[in-house]
Amino acid sequence: MSSPLCHSALLTDLYELTMAAAYFDGKFHATASFELFVRALPPQRSFLVAAGLEQALDYLEKVRFEPEDIEYLRRHPVFQHVSAAFFDYLKDFRFNGEVWAMPEGTLVFEEEPLLRVTAPIIEAQIVETFLLSTLTFQTMVASKGARMVDAAQGRGVVEFGSRRAHGAEAGVLAARAAYIAGCSGTSNLEAGRRFGIPTFGTQAHSFVMAYGDEEESFRNFERSFPEHGVLLIDTYDTLAAVDKIIRAGLRPHSVRLDSGDFVELSREVRKRLDQAGLSETKIFASGDLDEFVIADLLARGAQIDAFGVGTALATSKDAPSLSGVYKLVDVDFGQGPAGRAKLSNDKSTYPCRKQVFRMRDSSGRYSGDIVAAEGERCPDGEPLLSCAVRKGKRLSPYSNMQQIQQHAKAELAHLAEPYRRLQNAERYPVRFSRALKENLEQIRNRHIQPVGRRES
Amino acid sequence: MSSPLCHSALLTDLYELTMAAAYFDGKFHATASFELFVRALPPQRSFLVAAGLEQALDYLEKVRFEPEDIEYLRRHPVFQHVSAAFFDYLKDFRFNGEVWAMPEGTLVFEEEPLLRVTAPIIEAQIVETFLLSTLTFQTMVASKGARMVDAAQGRGVVEFGSRRAHGAEAGVLAARAAYIAGCSGTSNLEAGRRFGIPTFGTQAHSFVMAYGDEEESFRNFERSFPEHGVLLIDTYDTLAAVDKIIRAGLRPHSVRLDSGDFVELSREVRKRLDQAGLSETKIFASGDLDEFVIADLLARGAQIDAFGVGTALATSKDAPSLSGVYKLVDVDFGQGPAGRAKLSNDKSTYPCRKQVFRMRDSSGRYSGDIVAAEGERCPDGEPLLSCAVRKGKRLSPYSNMQQIQQHAKAELAHLAEPYRRLQNAERYPVRFSRALKENLEQIRNRHIQPVGRRES
Repeated sequence: MSSPLCHSALLTDLYELTMAAAYFDGKFHATASFELFVRALPPQRSFLVAAGLEQALDYLEKVRFEPEDIEYLRRHPVFQHVSAAFFDYLKDFRFNGEVWAMPEGTLVFEEEPLLRVTAPIIEAQIVETFLLSTLTFQTMVASKGARMVDAAQGRGVVEFGSRRAHGAEAGVLAARAAYIAGCSGTSNLEAGRRFGIPTFGTQAHSFVMAYGDEEESFRNFERSFPEHGVLLIDTYDTLAAVDKIIRAGLRPHSVRLDSGDFVELSREVRKRLDQAGLSETKIFASGDLDEFVIADLLARGAQIDAFGVGTALATSKDAPSLSGVYKLVDVDFGQGPAGRAKLSNDKSTYPCRKQVFRMRDSSGRYSGDIVAAEGERCPDGEPLLSCAVRKGKRLSPYSNMQQIQQHAKAELAHLAEPYRRLQNAERYPVRFSRALKENLEQIRNRHIQPVGRRES
Repeated sequence: MSSPLCHSALLTDLYELTMAAAYFDGKFHATASFELFVRALPPQRSFLVAAGLEQALDYLEKVRFEPEDIEYLRRHPVFQHVSAAFFDYLKDFRFNGEVWAMPEGTLVFEEEPLLRVTAPIIEAQIVETFLLSTLTFQTMVASKGARMVDAAQGRGVVEFGSRRAHGAEAGVLAARAAYIAGCSGTSNLEAGRRFGIPTFGTQAHSFVMAYGDEEESFRNFERSFPEHGVLLIDTYDTLAAVDKIIRAGLRPHSVRLDSGDFVELSREVRKRLDQAGLSETKIFASGDLDEFVIADLLARGAQIDAFGVGTALATSKDAPSLSGVYKLVDVDFGQGPAGRAKLSNDKSTYPCRKQVFRMRDSSGRYSGDIVAAEGERCPDGEPLLSCAVRKGKRLSPYSNMQQIQQHAKAELAHLAEPYRRLQNAERYPVRFSRALKENLEQIRNRHIQPVGRRES
């Protein structure tokens, strides 16, 4: 987003700043690498579609502490023993680090870094919260959207979820992510203007209700939108509304169903429209749709040409969060990077900067990924992370939404059906290189001491 | 939010603008009333806590079409047949209507209007999407938060969910809503600065890992935060970390558990801290907590003083959307308001502007609500909707977060335990007045004609 709000360095957790102050006052000068990844896929997902990098890079270029931000921190009780020099440092705070990332639209699986930051440790730490929220949110929505587009078997899917999104900004970003996933567009005008993605709209029940007379409302709408009008036909009685459209001689672009039995209704509506010579009029359906409902409707012979999906997509309703984390993987005090790992129960992480390699089978389909330490070679695999920011300057081009959508489409085309099924998909093979496993074991041996009782 | 982004009139669905254009070019001059309500509570909720009004009113005061917004619409293919006068109208677009609303922190139940807009129909329509997203999102989070605060039985609950929120703005608004619900504060600094709510922070695993030596990391942190330091003790081995703190003679404000068996660990950590004379050091727990986990931990004797809750709160994970709708209830062409209702299958709505009355039993507890047509009398009930905006000018005072939190607390105190249980709560009685039911029947009789086949 280009608004000032979205580059405020206060869009972060307090602990990023307490740690920053402790590093600063403790003269802890180090370069650190953090990797952002999703710890585990939700049960209902077999792949993710990376999204949100554009907003992440934009933030990294522009993040600043404004004078009022610093004043707020200075007066905060927790910082009372922190040096004045720290607040001076914040005045000039810039992100000067390096970022490696997967391009938006790339398929990504659990534990695979989709972004890595290498920077002075304070810089790398402060940006954690924003990077996590923007990347995991958009990745989550794009991943959900790809399933809906799959389910629709080539029919259009339009993102309609702004009203149920988690605030206005979430609506705009969800629209963007849905487009990456292959949706035809969105109802969100701000997303249309900002990102250049197609926007679609129909009419609401309120329009039909305002006129009182349904036919009059249809005539009026058609007068303003003779080529693009989508008439909503379920306000009072769906089939009666179709008959009114026919009797009035209207030729709407589409009619929209929003309640009732879509299979039965869509077939009957189609029949009546066709009999009246309105075979070009499309049938659009909306109302609590998700990938399962769409697949079921089509399997049962619904005559629907396009779907509007809202809540389930914009909130990723069945999995409204991803276990996105941002983990320290190495620290460099000037003598080269030393690996770092977290060993907590069930939450251990692999040390060292990594690269993800994607392998293909003889037909060109993706056959599995190898996560390796940076510098390890993998001649058969395609490296997925590339340098996006160097010394704080952005290298990667600004996103072209149509290209990102095409990239995602090509990625999905390379994912075999068993990994892509809506239910009971096979687990895509991701393995970690032996070097990474050995590095983790070394750290484990160093830190786990036979002291105290261990919880089971 | 005070950023320009958040008052763009393009933060809406395209269909709001197509309807606006059709009303404008069709010379449909009417004043309309819309009511915003939640159609049904999610299965896991027995009450809602209204929140988000401040952002809604701020938006209504400031919403504008910027020149580039209008240019975008003018070039949009759907508007090719719309008059130039419509775009001139948008240049001067302001919200000039009237708003009635429940104060933030008020308990609200299904189908009860928490906000009503009465305005020229175009104005009332364009603001729909923003009002829905900001009010239902914050109401959803506040409702979830109140359950967690209940479960914690007086212990502090801090909102930590920014990293998993649906983008940066959602994190800020979730923090605000959580505070309304009774949380002690948030980790989100922007929310702290903007809304004046307390912020809390600890340290991350990365801080401990960066030093390599856990004890050195603790010492360094304590040096910067001698009174407020919260040390994270599960990076490598929780109990060994406690022993290091004790041996090093540190006196942290708190220690934080983030993994492992919290019941067993917290009791053992408490014991060791107490034995070492650190009985003032608190135990803070975080990591995939929700109201059920908190209740269970306390029931099983966990020695935890405060909880940090993230994902489950900031995304309302088990119910990440509310069925918020914004429905036309009357239209006035100058001869007084005429009721409007939607009759779609299972989605019908009551016509007419409404007031919600809350009744009390002899002990002062809330005993049930009556939703009545505006103007109906209910001598025993307290009216919940009051006028917040008149002729586009805000009447209600700017929100004081502490007062809103107090109001929510008082509201919850009046809700009897059966309606407030985490599971299997009783359904709070809400009934609609006879006048409303009769109005709905009249409209039904007028619109449902015996034409065509009805779906079952």
